[in-house]
Amino acid sequence: MNVPAFAPYTEDAVTRFMRIRRQTLALCAGLSGEDLQVQSMPEASPGKWHLAHTTWFFEQFVLGCDPAYRSADPAWDYLFNSYYESVGPMHARPKRGLLTRPTLDDIRDYRSRIDEAVGELLVRGVDQPLAARIELGLQHEQQHQELLLTDIKHAFWCNPLQPAYHHASSPNESRSAPMRFVPGRQGPMDIGHHGDGFAYDNETPRHTTWLSSHALANRLVTNDEYLAFIRDGGYRDAGLWLSDGWVRVQRDGWERPLYWQQDLTSEFTLAGIQPLDPHAPVCHISYFEADAFARWAGARLPTEAEWEDAAARLPLHGNFQDNLRLHPIAMPSGDGLLQMYGDAWEWTASPYVSYPGFKPLPGALGEYNGKFMNGQWVLRGGSCATPRDHIRASYRNFFPPHARWQFAGIRLGQDR
Amino acid sequence: MNVPAFAPYTEDAVTRFMRIRRQTLALCAGLSGEDLQVQSMPEASPGKWHLAHTTWFFEQFVLGCDPAYRSADPAWDYLFNSYYESVGPMHARPKRGLLTRPTLDDIRDYRSRIDEAVGELLVRGVDQPLAARIELGLQHEQQHQELLLTDIKHAFWCNPLQPAYHHASSPNESRSAPMRFVPGRQGPMDIGHHGDGFAYDNETPRHTTWLSSHALANRLVTNDEYLAFIRDGGYRDAGLWLSDGWVRVQRDGWERPLYWQQDLTSEFTLAGIQPLDPHAPVCHISYFEADAFARWAGARLPTEAEWEDAAARLPLHGNFQDNLRLHPIAMPSGDGLLQMYGDAWEWTASPYVSYPGFKPLPGALGEYNGKFMNGQWVLRGGSCATPRDHIRASYRNFFPPHARWQFAGIRLGQDR
Amino acid sequence: MNVPAFAPYTEDAVTRFMRIRRQTLALCAGLSGEDLQVQSMPEASPGKWHLAHTTWFFEQFVLGCDPAYRSADPAWDYLFNSYYESVGPMHARPKRGLLTRPTLDDIRDYRSRIDEAVGELLVRGVDQPLAARIELGLQHEQQHQELLLTDIKHAFWCNPLQPAYHHASSPNESRSAPMRFVPGRQGPMDIGHHGDGFAYDNETPRHTTWLSSHALANRLVTNDEYLAFIRDGGYRDAGLWLSDGWVRVQRDGWERPLYWQQDLTSEFTLAGIQPLDPHAPVCHISYFEADAFARWAGARLPTEAEWEDAAARLPLHGNFQDNLRLHPIAMPSGDGLLQMYGDAWEWTASPYVSYPGFKPLPGALGEYNGKFMNGQWVLRGGSCATPRDHIRASYRNFFPPHARWQFAGIRLGQDR
Amino acid sequence: MNVPAFAPYTEDAVTRFMRIRRQTLALCAGLSGEDLQVQSMPEASPGKWHLAHTTWFFEQFVLGCDPAYRSADPAWDYLFNSYYESVGPMHARPKRGLLTRPTLDDIRDYRSRIDEAVGELLVRGVDQPLAARIELGLQHEQQHQELLLTDIKHAFWCNPLQPAYHHASSPNESRSAPMRFVPGRQGPMDIGHHGDGFAYDNETPRHTTWLSSHALANRLVTNDEYLAFIRDGGYRDAGLWLSDGWVRVQRDGWERPLYWQQDLTSEFTLAGIQPLDPHAPVCHISYFEADAFARWAGARLPTEAEWEDAAARLPLHGNFQDNLRLHPIAMPSGDGLLQMYGDAWEWTASPYVSYPGFKPLPGALGEYNGKFMNGQWVLRGGSCATPRDHIRASYRNFFPPHARWQFAGIRLGQDR
Ligand SMILES: [Fe+3]
Ligand SMILES: [Fe+3]
Ligand SMILES: [Fe+3]
Ligand SMILES: [Fe+3]
Repeated sequence: MNVPAFAPYTEDAVTRFMRIRRQTLALCAGLSGEDLQVQSMPEASPGKWHLAHTTWFFEQFVLGCDPAYRSADPAWDYLFNSYYESVGPMHARPKRGLLTRPTLDDIRDYRSRIDEAVGELLVRGVDQPLAARIELGLQHEQQHQELLLTDIKHAFWCNPLQPAYHHASSPNESRSAPMRFVPGRQGPMDIGHHGDGFAYDNETPRHTTWLSSHALANRLVTNDEYLAFIRDGGYRDAGLWLSDGWVRVQRDGWERPLYWQQDLTSEFTLAGIQPLDPHAPVCHISYFEADAFARWAGARLPTEAEWEDAAARLPLHGNFQDNLRLHPIAMPSGDGLLQMYGDAWEWTASPYVSYPGFKPLPGALGEYNGKFMNGQWVLRGGSCATPRDHIRASYRNFFPPHARWQFAGIRLGQDR
Repeated sequence: MNVPAFAPYTEDAVTRFMRIRRQTLALCAGLSGEDLQVQSMPEASPGKWHLAHTTWFFEQFVLGCDPAYRSADPAWDYLFNSYYESVGPMHARPKRGLLTRPTLDDIRDYRSRIDEAVGELLVRGVDQPLAARIELGLQHEQQHQELLLTDIKHAFWCNPLQPAYHHASSPNESRSAPMRFVPGRQGPMDIGHHGDGFAYDNETPRHTTWLSSHALANRLVTNDEYLAFIRDGGYRDAGLWLSDGWVRVQRDGWERPLYWQQDLTSEFTLAGIQPLDPHAPVCHISYFEADAFARWAGARLPTEAEWEDAAARLPLHGNFQDNLRLHPIAMPSGDGLLQMYGDAWEWTASPYVSYPGFKPLPGALGEYNGKFMNGQWVLRGGSCATPRDHIRASYRNFFPPHARWQFAGIRLGQDR
Repeated sequence: MNVPAFAPYTEDAVTRFMRIRRQTLALCAGLSGEDLQVQSMPEASPGKWHLAHTTWFFEQFVLGCDPAYRSADPAWDYLFNSYYESVGPMHARPKRGLLTRPTLDDIRDYRSRIDEAVGELLVRGVDQPLAARIELGLQHEQQHQELLLTDIKHAFWCNPLQPAYHHASSPNESRSAPMRFVPGRQGPMDIGHHGDGFAYDNETPRHTTWLSSHALANRLVTNDEYLAFIRDGGYRDAGLWLSDGWVRVQRDGWERPLYWQQDLTSEFTLAGIQPLDPHAPVCHISYFEADAFARWAGARLPTEAEWEDAAARLPLHGNFQDNLRLHPIAMPSGDGLLQMYGDAWEWTASPYVSYPGFKPLPGALGEYNGKFMNGQWVLRGGSCATPRDHIRASYRNFFPPHARWQFAGIRLGQDR
Repeated sequence: MNVPAFAPYTEDAVTRFMRIRRQTLALCAGLSGEDLQVQSMPEASPGKWHLAHTTWFFEQFVLGCDPAYRSADPAWDYLFNSYYESVGPMHARPKRGLLTRPTLDDIRDYRSRIDEAVGELLVRGVDQPLAARIELGLQHEQQHQELLLTDIKHAFWCNPLQPAYHHASSPNESRSAPMRFVPGRQGPMDIGHHGDGFAYDNETPRHTTWLSSHALANRLVTNDEYLAFIRDGGYRDAGLWLSDGWVRVQRDGWERPLYWQQDLTSEFTLAGIQPLDPHAPVCHISYFEADAFARWAGARLPTEAEWEDAAARLPLHGNFQDNLRLHPIAMPSGDGLLQMYGDAWEWTASPYVSYPGFKPLPGALGEYNGKFMNGQWVLRGGSCATPRDHIRASYRNFFPPHARWQFAGIRLGQDR
């Protein structure tokens, strides 16, 4: 976690803090207390819990740095600790949806109180370690903003009424650019975070890796292309699938991306049921589906090193949460690699493991990333639900291979 | 279902209808939309769902009798049908808690609309079959009132904050009367519903059964008596338990009634954590626990016929929902059989099966009771959460033997 | 358990003991060590385990009555105790199939040693209590003979090769007698064991019960009749089923009796795949199926009291294990009630509960029957796998409502 | 798969074929038909099934190359196909233990028949592709030899009698050499199979990878060292564990290696319960335990590239199946890296994924390795149950992180 120190913190720091914190509330503006109460699966959390947990993060890891700090209600540590074993015991994850109390109003008050306290700290000035923790809290807040959106999307989809979270944007009329493969660099290359900005511990240390001869597709796989895979029997041909993936296909009856309707012409979105845009990137697929599609296409997924080496030289443009579309859109044209950022997270061929020489953050914050380095695959590039100022080339997201409720899609890669 | 016809229905019928319907809302008065959203286990339902389902019952089975009736939103049939296969498909029971839409306000509107329509019917006058269906709807409403209370109790108990549903009543200082056994009648006796009042189909037909020589305890088993069972190792002695019960004891770690605290001196109630009253009837125990306690006490549970034959000659007095205590209380003294009604449902030694010559109601309403005649045991007498005008001597409640979240307790019986 | 004392026991007692014990081995004659090793589901046991457990029963409850008795290998108590908690801890039931040691030869030796010891006791003479325990051991042995057959049938059926346990008998060419309903007696009747012969504790005490006006079908339901139920959509009509049964139908995909082939013209038997005899009694159905069939047929199942009152006046004739057919056969003609004994156990409408005044056997043997009085239904009359001298009018067998691997069929009853 | 062609094949090829095939039978010599019948968990297979499946492999992939070949019993394809979806449907893996037929004698005959047919092929001479398939069959046979041993070990351990598979070897009196860290090479290095010998597809292609500065421990972690971890509370400190591992520790109650006795002084081995040798390598631990131990020790696990780069320069010496000890032993002294081969498979820090440019074998044999590249970790070096001529520096074994029933242990690595 690399964050420069400012003492006293400028007003911009307070502004940034308040802007990001308010954005979380803004995302909940159209949701009722009932909507924010519900947990549709163990992997998701209620919106209310996201609001409280991100606040608890600041209370625990920022305000709590002051030994004199006393939490207003220690029982809330138990409720809103997500997975920090070294902080203490916690409420069982699959039961977060049962917490009707504290009420949404209580949580809003909680947010105000903690925001005020952190704001005062910032105004008084904080040292570098504390500034780093506040920055980590804001990055954490932004991660939960994305989860808040993907979790409410899942919850609404579980409702036979299939309600909409927001109004649909005007339809995108663009066609997608033709798919081309763009050669990547070969040989020893350095990846991992460098420079002054923020990064999670799992993006460090910067280190050398060897890139084989390869190429990356210039854009994401589209719904149309994915339809061709379906129509060609992709979900019925065991030979295309990893063994664990085939088990899922059969056991869970997978026949199409998570939120597609059975007719393959419409899909559930945060704007409710919408026509499927053939040119938009396919999303809400698992690693297993991305991998099977790539095999069917005679290609493979990129490694995270191939992806990062290419992305590091591109500007951070893309279809992000800031657009408020909250859905991937077609990319009509452009040179080189398109859609590397935004639209949909890109499954890579890289299991989520530590970089050589990795050191987790000291103390409880070391549990943020390192302990999940098993059974997950790296995704890169952010999505239409990611805040634009949250992503970077070295950013490593990770999910288990069967996860489908994220905005996750496919970029193809090739051996050359 | 025996209900006399009135045409036109008197204003008292409208009053009764509105009173019972409003009572359901009154029970929700202190609960937020969040509280009413949550489903803490598959066997329980959200309060909001209870509010909607009981309304749907009138829409489906009363208003729907008019072939011209069109439901405002047929999708709601899917959401709020509980288990009537012949009405159509339905939302999966364990997922009722995911329905954040329709909102609580939508449901309140729904209740108003349907109440108005049924009220109009009543004012215009209804024939006997329709009157019977309205009466069934009201009895159904009252059943769900009790479930609403037991379900919110379970949900609040799941919350580490253990919130209270209402304020505690003033403590009850009474001691319990000494336990005595009162001989019952022996020989051929008739049980089952007779007379003009309402009864469910499963209480009919009235028929002869043979009572062996027996006696019933004069009152319910108290917390103190149950504590003696615990302290004597009752939960550790396999010899006291039915085989299926012993599996539960070990698998689920049962050591005390559901809502008792580990210290055995306090318990979770609808008024939050309260001191355990040694003289109050024990409740929130399973059939397995009732049966094991009885075996430990050298006694047995009464059969439902023994219970009904005795109860039929007693007045309908007791500690009911109407008292607003919503918890069992000690019975200081009295002659004969005490606490036969109210306080706690009494597990009987009778599996829930049909009476000789049983005919379920015709049509979908035949699914109300008959199809559950497997794997459940009969409980009798109503509880502190039952409306006083809902219970009668012939009333047969039923739950599976492991169920603990109802206000269910123990009356001992004996062979003589 | 009522058994007359003989001192010294006559040679006939020794002969009887040896005959029954040898019969168990005879049933295994065509099976390899591998066949006897396998446990195809938690509810079944390996043949080898049956051989050992029945022997352990004599060691524990007969030889072990002598305080000086020392078991050759106390570890075997752990292995071959089935469910007697008061005897001590035991090997987990679903893992019986893992016990490749002791070997089949070890178990055969064990049987010989224990048989010799019990034989010596019998020759020297035993007092009444010990005679009763030996008799109980023999009855127990016979129960396990039937289970050995039903368990190996299930295991062989699980094998895609569907091997045969024995050669098929010559086909039975008989047609079944027409179905008629025979009126039963009404009023107070006594049921339960009486007289001098052996009975399990659960058949006592003899007591009065009240029979309503009713009739019983003169014979078992045939395969042809059951086919009509299937063809009429019986397995697709929720209205015919108990709620728990309908869950099974859907979850487990029930469409026909357990061992029928998909084409509905042949079935798996102990003689391998055989043509379905339309006139033979249907068997290998659950209580849920028997109950649904009866409802479809406009009838109901008999209560156990109705059955016993009728059966007690009939001779003990039927198609038993002794015939070595090991499959039900058609009953061409006859007066009154046919097939009451043998062919297939008859599911009754009676849950398995205690009789009024029931006292289990003292000590560990009290666990034989009483602790299973939950969640099971009574079956009456024995089957083609029951030894003829094991059954009687008061005999109460019991299985959970979903059990299908026993030779269980249907006799219809009627209210009159 | 790289195998040189010989035409006609020399007699040595026949000898090798017969030697390896006979070795599988030799491993079963002390086991009864019952022992070989049993499957103690879904991940294990019965010995009889291993005997049949390895034979089916030759029938399917060698003899079946002749279009005129007709299998004696096509039903056996269903029974003994393990996971080759493109060959056809197969018997469910967790139900392999139910196949009492074909009998052990049938399987022995099957082995003889197929051995004779393959032997004849070899004598007549085979072309390179067929020679490669025969070689693959033999390598496959050797893999199953190891599994046969680990599976019977698990089955015997499940038996409360804890029988021995073979007689214990004379005890090993050696102390272990002190642990030292040996620096590895840094920079671009080539790994993967090269040269003429056999290799699985997953060991190819040889390719460049970048090694960071690191060192490897000179020997495996001993029981004594692992005891120190246990005694220091290693199994109770969440901070040492991956999140998924901590779930296992708590859910499955892990407190020590799989086969250790509770007293931590003895362990179950293929020679039954034996004293724990403090100097012998710890084994039967999961990846989670290896990783937690390494973290506790202030070290990490080696990557597979680090391991291979070091191992490729060492002779293939070690404690293998050929020793017939079938248990790891202490390594008293020596220079450089010890125990790299044999004793215990070494968990690496590398998830099992494809090498850059990986191409699976064409056809059904492509399912051998590639489809398992998810959720597993690479192990290197072979074990005391691996045939000496089966292992090599580039060999990649893989198991899921919770697997404990293999002879898997720990070598530490370090960043430098
Ligand atoms: Fe978080
Ligand atoms: Fe209802
Ligand atoms: Fe038994
Ligand atoms: Fe294999």
